[in-house]
Amino acid sequence: MQEMIRVAVDAMGGDYAPAEMVKGAINAVTLRQDIKVYLIGRQDAVKKELEKHSYNGKQIEVIHAEEVIETAEPPVMAIRKKKQSSIVVGLNMVKEKKADAFVSAGSSGAILVGGQVIVGRIKGVERPPLAPLIPTEQGVSLLIDCGANVDARASHLVQFAKMGSIYMENVLGVKKPKVAIVNIGAEEEKGNALVKETFPLLKNCPDINFTGSIEAREIPHGEADVIVCEAFTGNVILKLYEGLSGTLVSVIKRGMLASLRSKIGALLVKPSLKKTLKAFDATEYGGAPLLGLNGLVVKTHGSAKAKEVTNSIIQCVTFSEQEINEKIRKNIGTSPMEE
Amino acid sequence: MQEMIRVAVDAMGGDYAPAEMVKGAINAVTLRQDIKVYLIGRQDAVKKELEKHSYNGKQIEVIHAEEVIETAEPPVMAIRKKKQSSIVVGLNMVKEKKADAFVSAGSSGAILVGGQVIVGRIKGVERPPLAPLIPTEQGVSLLIDCGANVDARASHLVQFAKMGSIYMENVLGVKKPKVAIVNIGAEEEKGNALVKETFPLLKNCPDINFTGSIEAREIPHGEADVIVCEAFTGNVILKLYEGLSGTLVSVIKRGMLASLRSKIGALLVKPSLKKTLKAFDATEYGGAPLLGLNGLVVKTHGSAKAKEVTNSIIQCVTFSEQEINEKIRKNIGTSPMEE
Repeated sequence: MQEMIRVAVDAMGGDYAPAEMVKGAINAVTLRQDIKVYLIGRQDAVKKELEKHSYNGKQIEVIHAEEVIETAEPPVMAIRKKKQSSIVVGLNMVKEKKADAFVSAGSSGAILVGGQVIVGRIKGVERPPLAPLIPTEQGVSLLIDCGANVDARASHLVQFAKMGSIYMENVLGVKKPKVAIVNIGAEEEKGNALVKETFPLLKNCPDINFTGSIEAREIPHGEADVIVCEAFTGNVILKLYEGLSGTLVSVIKRGMLASLRSKIGALLVKPSLKKTLKAFDATEYGGAPLLGLNGLVVKTHGSAKAKEVTNSIIQCVTFSEQEINEKIRKNIGTSPMEE
Repeated sequence: MQEMIRVAVDAMGGDYAPAEMVKGAINAVTLRQDIKVYLIGRQDAVKKELEKHSYNGKQIEVIHAEEVIETAEPPVMAIRKKKQSSIVVGLNMVKEKKADAFVSAGSSGAILVGGQVIVGRIKGVERPPLAPLIPTEQGVSLLIDCGANVDARASHLVQFAKMGSIYMENVLGVKKPKVAIVNIGAEEEKGNALVKETFPLLKNCPDINFTGSIEAREIPHGEADVIVCEAFTGNVILKLYEGLSGTLVSVIKRGMLASLRSKIGALLVKPSLKKTLKAFDATEYGGAPLLGLNGLVVKTHGSAKAKEVTNSIIQCVTFSEQEINEKIRKNIGTSPMEE
């Protein structure tokens, strides 16, 4: 029998928990027989949701976790105090190898802190970056780092470039992924102190296909596969991407409903438009992995619905099958023997 | 007779120079009788463009400048060596009070460096920020700083907040403009070292209406009138704004032409849509002023066409009429007596 990929899912995290988390899990195990999902959260609430659906009972198991970490809670304190929270219980399952991955739409801060503290970094990895896929005209690019580790050093950015390349090559199947650093001009001498220090290091790094600077204007065109930046910048890019796309779509909708003539037109363009805009919807691409940990931790949007949860769970299979962590360990960390 | 506002316009800078610069200048003087434009550039080329139009000859004068600073040239060197360039000649006119303002679509670097070196800073202003208006759902916000002065200090950001408030209140007529700092979370304790240091300073600044942090996601909603950030972040926001808007509009157009049905719909929605998207077009709002100099310097997009040039020239009138620099000098600098 094929080995199962075991994914722990935070049933309590996110705006639509537990209903959409449970639905996403059921869809995932229905699509793939090689996945087992552990739904972590308040047993009563989770079971009540499960009862609404039919599914293969062998592929889903509920793990009770009494507590929930709220988004507003200070992360370090929350991880330390709420040992019975769905996030801490899930991360501990990954640490103890009872699960191959943990997927959560809960508090970003708690997941990032907990990932490092509980699951732990791969030896040699200085900082585990959060690396979401963002939609572009040509497909997707990996934006690395969008996490909470701001004020990074040049050596961190070089590791982000390496880990991002491994991810894009092995999970997305991009051959020799193009790596670029976010900058405010195309020339090598441009940039802030961090970029100026990092640029030559990336240029001389033999493990990656570095193509130079990328200005924010070019990001949506999809010229780079791996977009390297410090977390503050990455967070600004990611959130502006989401905010601006949403705003423009709503502005466009409003414009279409401005007159009777355009209302009729809107009905006619709707199906084609929906299809095109779907390609620009970040939730289509699942969650963002926290790379460089001794196990896989995936953060989905707080507003994730079933589809994103399903995509995130399935993403874990490719990640495990391709042995991404083994590759990161070999490329960045010290040899596995030393651990 | 009413006093004329004298605007020096770089006829040679930008992708569509000199044709669109000349056209923009002619439109401006046609719209307003209180503007005199000095078109700076190669006499033959500029005059050839002028001959294509009819205009009030008293409102336009050509100032010959033999050289042109190219976008790729290192700014400091270019400003130093090309004394006969349109940028240096224009900035010198502002310095010598022969012009009230200088408008250019040329090399950002050269304009920023030249503005400081030639025109000079208002005493007390530590760094002159570049402050473009960006479109939002509610109108426009001032994004300050998007210039070339990266790695700013907290004290710089406080000055940006003050100068931005003066600009929005007096040029745009926004009462008690809401000031926010770009951050990666809404809470005060979030952010990188710079934001953490700046936040309490803004909070305790009596001259501004500080409303706290703004996440990049919220920027397009227009919750803040003055958006304060360090130049690297500002540049990323500005360029992503432009790039993503452009990409989404082209993606949407492509989507609309996908089928015959949607093609017909596209024809019907086109007029309404055009009107709505126009509000989201950055070029509608003229150029970005470089605040805090002893004179007004305005940078327009490199891709500026006549309309943006016209808007930028007219913007200079409000700036002069409202005596923005006098207000900045009083609010930030030492008293005018000392200068």
